[in-house]
Amino acid sequence: MLIPKVAIVGPSGAVGKTLVQLLYERSFPFSEIRLCGSERSIGGEISVGDKSIKVEKATPELFKQVDIVFIAAGSEVSRSLTPIAVNSGAIVIDKSSEFRMNKDVPLVIPEVNGIDLNCHKGIISSPNCSTTPLAMTLKALSCISPITRVVVDTYQSVSGSGLPAMEELRTQTNDVLSNGNVTPKVYPHQIAFNALPHIDDFHESGYTTEELKMVYETRKILHQPELSISATCVRIPVMVGHSEAVHIEFKRSVEVEHVRAVLSKSPGISVVDDPKTRSYPLPIQVEGKDDIYVGRIRRDKSNARGLAMWLVSDNLRKGASLNALQIAEELLKKGMILNKKGENNYA
Amino acid sequence: MLIPKVAIVGPSGAVGKTLVQLLYERSFPFSEIRLCGSERSIGGEISVGDKSIKVEKATPELFKQVDIVFIAAGSEVSRSLTPIAVNSGAIVIDKSSEFRMNKDVPLVIPEVNGIDLNCHKGIISSPNCSTTPLAMTLKALSCISPITRVVVDTYQSVSGSGLPAMEELRTQTNDVLSNGNVTPKVYPHQIAFNALPHIDDFHESGYTTEELKMVYETRKILHQPELSISATCVRIPVMVGHSEAVHIEFKRSVEVEHVRAVLSKSPGISVVDDPKTRSYPLPIQVEGKDDIYVGRIRRDKSNARGLAMWLVSDNLRKGASLNALQIAEELLKKGMILNKKGENNYA
Repeated sequence: MLIPKVAIVGPSGAVGKTLVQLLYERSFPFSEIRLCGSERSIGGEISVGDKSIKVEKATPELFKQVDIVFIAAGSEVSRSLTPIAVNSGAIVIDKSSEFRMNKDVPLVIPEVNGIDLNCHKGIISSPNCSTTPLAMTLKALSCISPITRVVVDTYQSVSGSGLPAMEELRTQTNDVLSNGNVTPKVYPHQIAFNALPHIDDFHESGYTTEELKMVYETRKILHQPELSISATCVRIPVMVGHSEAVHIEFKRSVEVEHVRAVLSKSPGISVVDDPKTRSYPLPIQVEGKDDIYVGRIRRDKSNARGLAMWLVSDNLRKGASLNALQIAEELLKKGMILNKKGENNYA
Repeated sequence: MLIPKVAIVGPSGAVGKTLVQLLYERSFPFSEIRLCGSERSIGGEISVGDKSIKVEKATPELFKQVDIVFIAAGSEVSRSLTPIAVNSGAIVIDKSSEFRMNKDVPLVIPEVNGIDLNCHKGIISSPNCSTTPLAMTLKALSCISPITRVVVDTYQSVSGSGLPAMEELRTQTNDVLSNGNVTPKVYPHQIAFNALPHIDDFHESGYTTEELKMVYETRKILHQPELSISATCVRIPVMVGHSEAVHIEFKRSVEVEHVRAVLSKSPGISVVDDPKTRSYPLPIQVEGKDDIYVGRIRRDKSNARGLAMWLVSDNLRKGASLNALQIAEELLKKGMILNKKGENNYA
């Protein structure tokens, strides 16, 4: 098996940090790791366990020396660096939304549509953190019956907006508790002890970009361009872990017990669903966990062929870094990462 | 007009406190006010503005001396005191869920079904705090088109569980921020920086009592026993103000602009819906406000005859005490509070 050289762009961010950690935690095979940061962080070091890794500038030369480039920064960074990395012969696995809807770019959750990796042309996108758990659940359930409609409302944590947002929640919470003044910076309004029905920009339709990502990305991942989906995305004062209240309509009537059994057997999905013992997925319990968690599974009272449920996942892991890393693992397994650098780094 | 004598049961609780305050704030006409508390609070005093009112024991004698009894305590208190109050000739306006689904008890939001007051037999129930804003919105929209289905997911504040829950959120939040231990008391799990998809007891169907209240109470209030509704009720770390993501299906296609206009003209409803200026209802902004607030109104992307929107209201006001008081105001206006005590307290 090829032992690739990897670079991570954005290793100081919430997602990048988790990604560096996961590379070691999952013993991802690499022969070299390079970390590329913003101007501000170049020259600094990132600690992983007992190691310390220098942060470098992202250059065409650096990209030429690696096989895989993970981009865990915003869309702008991705827009400027991805073409350089691809031209340098590396495969880019991008966590940003920049290329997700590009028809030449596969948008992949390995458990759902790993097959789409076969069509990649150098760039592979990893989905939005609220799309991933939904798409995984829908895919797992589609073997029971075709799905005709999905309504989802989210309860998203601040870590989805990065480390400064987590700091803002901490600071504001302290300020509110001590009757101090609150000055929102990351969010347009106070997030402490509040609920903001506003994530990302608004469109003419009244939907936000985050809500439309859930619609369009889910359709692309599931290869169901006509799937009816509606979403309301809401930020709540939780540090890590996105929750989703989901209402799914099927073509045929489905049995709750069957649904539980099927979800339990699905890779990457855990069912936590025992109301008697007050067991259901909670954001504070899934933090640091790899799976997505499903509970509160019940017949939808408003539709004979409907189901309601509650999903929670660590948005920094399966919602972001873990999925990106699993894409790389899948590429390796498929033998799709070729040693384009002409170096002998086969094991 | 009759100037009634009123009693409030539960004046030290979150809802009761607001109710006492509102009686003065709205200049509700009363000739006497009596406050009845639990064993623990009897003999103490409640301050309202510059007044101080003694807390007494609820007795048949006390109830005989008043015309209206507001019960702002739990179902158990209501179960034991309501028959006594009614037998004493007083009209009971009950905030608990105890009698809401009783066919002889009108369940009333004055703006929606004030007419149901005509059938009361001594007890009138006020709906659940998450039902009221939903039912008001659905009623206001029903003049545009019949409504065929409703899916709602809630973001409920801790004040819905009373003052101890507000204290628990405060304490736990401090504990988490200072890396201390968290010991849940009011809730089954930590509420600070978390989201609990569990409000009230679980039923065999997988739904909670809170979710079923939203279903059955809405149907009763709207006189639509067959209305299809599904709800997921979630507690989030917000002090006051319940939010709801609502997806409504109509029999006919509706226009967003028309919906905004109709809601704006509806009594008790304010529209805050201008994404360009980041204006949408927020719990921290509706605290202490009487209206229910609607925003994020848009076509539902998953249904051609559907609408999505975001509701927020002060659960202690319109969701509880204000509605109870408005029921009393409506009874007075209709001349339905008779001086059963034989005393001359007409103005």
